[in-house]
Amino acid sequence: MKTKNIAIVGVGLMGGSLALQCRAKGLATKIIGVDNSKEHAKKALALGLVDEMKNLEVAIQESDVIVLSVPVDQLIELLPWVLDKTENQIVMDVGSTKELLLKRISSHPKRGRYVSTHPMWGTEYSGPQAAEKNAFENKAVVIVNGEASDTDALDWVSMMYKKIGMHLLNMKATDHDVHTAYVSHISHITSFALANTVLEKEKEEEAIFELASAGFESTVRLAKSNPAMWVPIFMQNKENVLDVLNEHISQLRKFKSCLEKENVAYLQELIENANKIQKIIQ
Amino acid sequence: MKTKNIAIVGVGLMGGSLALQCRAKGLATKIIGVDNSKEHAKKALALGLVDEMKNLEVAIQESDVIVLSVPVDQLIELLPWVLDKTENQIVMDVGSTKELLLKRISSHPKRGRYVSTHPMWGTEYSGPQAAEKNAFENKAVVIVNGEASDTDALDWVSMMYKKIGMHLLNMKATDHDVHTAYVSHISHITSFALANTVLEKEKEEEAIFELASAGFESTVRLAKSNPAMWVPIFMQNKENVLDVLNEHISQLRKFKSCLEKENVAYLQELIENANKIQKIIQ
Repeated sequence: MKTKNIAIVGVGLMGGSLALQCRAKGLATKIIGVDNSKEHAKKALALGLVDEMKNLEVAIQESDVIVLSVPVDQLIELLPWVLDKTENQIVMDVGSTKELLLKRISSHPKRGRYVSTHPMWGTEYSGPQAAEKNAFENKAVVIVNGEASDTDALDWVSMMYKKIGMHLLNMKATDHDVHTAYVSHISHITSFALANTVLEKEKEEEAIFELASAGFESTVRLAKSNPAMWVPIFMQNKENVLDVLNEHISQLRKFKSCLEKENVAYLQELIENANKIQKIIQ
Repeated sequence: MKTKNIAIVGVGLMGGSLALQCRAKGLATKIIGVDNSKEHAKKALALGLVDEMKNLEVAIQESDVIVLSVPVDQLIELLPWVLDKTENQIVMDVGSTKELLLKRISSHPKRGRYVSTHPMWGTEYSGPQAAEKNAFENKAVVIVNGEASDTDALDWVSMMYKKIGMHLLNMKATDHDVHTAYVSHISHITSFALANTVLEKEKEEEAIFELASAGFESTVRLAKSNPAMWVPIFMQNKENVLDVLNEHISQLRKFKSCLEKENVAYLQELIENANKIQKIIQ
């Protein structure tokens, strides 16, 4: 296997973790970082995530593969710009929303050089210091509208994800955005809202935080997630997120109604139904 | 320190874990289990959680300390019955709701022998096989209305919790029930409701579960919790849980309104506020 020069545009949680994995699996000749933040650039070098930091145009020229790992509002501007500068390089992204993005570049003359992907891994932390060595392993990665990519580009990206231990799923952009609303975006909204619910109360009482246990921590940890990443995700996937959010509020109202009417049998039924999630998560 | 014969009534997650800890810390001469379920009794013995299984009346007679670790609907019937049979033993519970329970036995002639406690530890699993060796360590335990307990009883229970690594908080029953609604009960409801939201969708689509990642798992894992434990908790703490649930639904509606009105600035603000939860959970 011939190694490649890989540019990582956005050396944060996702980009930094991918850089570590590409190096660990012997995929990279050289890893070039690109980041608007001088602080992030410095940290990425200090942490050894990248070999060097370059500006974007130079990085594009010097790379065989360009990974875009920036928030999705920046991504939608950046991708067409990068494709404009692309000769025969492979361009890929790791963004959480796909429909708008793929519409934006659907008729770009370099569309074939681009592979749209979404690795289903992340944490509530952000920045280069959040990058993790064994990230992505044993998780799914979605390849979106793969048929629109050139075969060589698709093959390399698929090989790269397999090498870092991911299993590949193929999906249409519209399906991807519906599914991630259910398995990722709504979890973040409930967690943010739960944090706000409890913080609202904290104004009155400090004691509740001494009591916070693992169960609370589990449901609320995503509330630490970065708004710069999540605001654009929610906005770009607005319609799907609203559908799921409406459904979720209606599920919560069922619990409310059970309590108000002391409907113990229905409360039991709701919880028994929820228990079926055991089929999906171990 | 004189070790004691300890009866564990309900050898499940909480009782079983406490039994393991009491043995590990050299607190028990003998641990006697009591459980209506023959299957649980057999497992508790096989797992070495208890030395022997006895019926409740014999266990009360042969013990110095009686720990009640049954669902709170059973507890509210069981506690006065056990106090009726109590000579000078210490009786304690580990239940998640306190106000109704303490009202029920407030004028019992043996009230002083009883210490009301709530260790802030648990998992989504239940039964003897869910018992964990290092449970409770470095967590908080609430001692509720401690002034109503005899000094010797309160002292032993406090010493026991310290020995197993917990830090003690004193609280009134009414405050306890408000606070646990915020830091525990609502987390379970949101998790159950989120599971039902996603399972509702699953009827149409299987693919979403291949995508479920750590973030989803984190917010939904409590949905595996046992209805036999949680239905009575929600019912007994109905008023507080409804207050928090209403607040939580109103917080979710703010997110909904941001999306509907494309109010990016307010969405950013909501998430930044939620980030403050970092002060509380690491």
